[in-house]
Amino acid sequence: MRLRHKPWAREEMDKYPSIVIQNPHENKNKWHEWFGNDKPLYVEVGTGKGQFLTGMGELHPDVNFIGVEKYDSVLISAMEKVRDTEQENVVFLNEDVENLLDFFGEGEIDRLFINFTDPWPKNKHAKRRLTHGNFLTLYKKVLKEDGEIHFKTDNQGLFEYSLHSMSTFGMAFNQVSLDLHKSSMEGNVMTEYEEKFSQKGMRIYRLEAHFNNK
Amino acid sequence: MRLRHKPWAREEMDKYPSIVIQNPHENKNKWHEWFGNDKPLYVEVGTGKGQFLTGMGELHPDVNFIGVEKYDSVLISAMEKVRDTEQENVVFLNEDVENLLDFFGEGEIDRLFINFTDPWPKNKHAKRRLTHGNFLTLYKKVLKEDGEIHFKTDNQGLFEYSLHSMSTFGMAFNQVSLDLHKSSMEGNVMTEYEEKFSQKGMRIYRLEAHFNNK
Repeated sequence: MRLRHKPWAREEMDKYPSIVIQNPHENKNKWHEWFGNDKPLYVEVGTGKGQFLTGMGELHPDVNFIGVEKYDSVLISAMEKVRDTEQENVVFLNEDVENLLDFFGEGEIDRLFINFTDPWPKNKHAKRRLTHGNFLTLYKKVLKEDGEIHFKTDNQGLFEYSLHSMSTFGMAFNQVSLDLHKSSMEGNVMTEYEEKFSQKGMRIYRLEAHFNNK
Repeated sequence: MRLRHKPWAREEMDKYPSIVIQNPHENKNKWHEWFGNDKPLYVEVGTGKGQFLTGMGELHPDVNFIGVEKYDSVLISAMEKVRDTEQENVVFLNEDVENLLDFFGEGEIDRLFINFTDPWPKNKHAKRRLTHGNFLTLYKKVLKEDGEIHFKTDNQGLFEYSLHSMSTFGMAFNQVSLDLHKSSMEGNVMTEYEEKFSQKGMRIYRLEAHFNNK
């Protein structure tokens, strides 16, 4: 993802604390309270400009969505989408996924999305991939027992690595698609990247996984 | 696989009982004895015309290979290859994979190959796929603890299904390639199908897996 420096982004987001949540650690274990309802909680890690999550929010008004994104220069676009559409079930955290346990309690999340995340192709950077075992350890803690991870990417190498990493961690795949846009999947919401890459005829890979041994 | 009826095939194979083993159940737990050495034992299920196994046999003289194939009309070609090249480390069983436990003891096999097996695309035939849980149960019994399954196919649906089926069974993938012939894998021996399909530009999928919880 190309990042353009936007020094005003953080300040602009601070004007909308009901969309980009300040001090999210205060809501740990209390997100249901914060939303004021008992809808399931779906979280996207590395939410970027928010097209996927706002699209999902519209399609599933019966679910609460939280997007976690550390770069304010892209998250500002996500904030603007929610501000302009006045969606009440989509909010964001301007935070690092590494600190996920600061914001979510054990078993607080019903489903977790990882979409078109940085592949970090060099082996020496494997630990930065959001499907590395260190991250899976975090996801396992915050997900409910039957919670699922839904993962999409156009990057073949990252998908191959993730099949290895997740299965070695003891995860099972409920669904795998090696060419999503030629599959029978319904209700797919596309990310910005997905639109761009699938238009170029590139394959999109997708899987749904859960923790076998939890 | 198109099967041509060859009424003479079985009779012809019977002439070479050192290549197509008669009464293989008598060798259960005694294959090392039968081969007369302590080389590791690699088995291919659904070995077809034997191009893969005879190629592997040449490349790896330090390994014993057994190919299991129920159709005599294709196995006859495999037998002829070994007869003509006088390979001593490759033999065949004209048997059904379903009966694997009749011919191999617990932990007797070091590695198992599944190559370009019938995809049985209809869901109602899922149990016939050689990566169905019922077959994995057999493989787990006959494989050594750290034994691996190596699986190749050109069939996207079968590969997706197998990722699901094997991970749900508790297997982990050491290696996954979603486009084998563009990968860095060395020493790949092609099957008849693989040559044909990869020449047409089709992707070949491959994985190496082991049983996590054995």
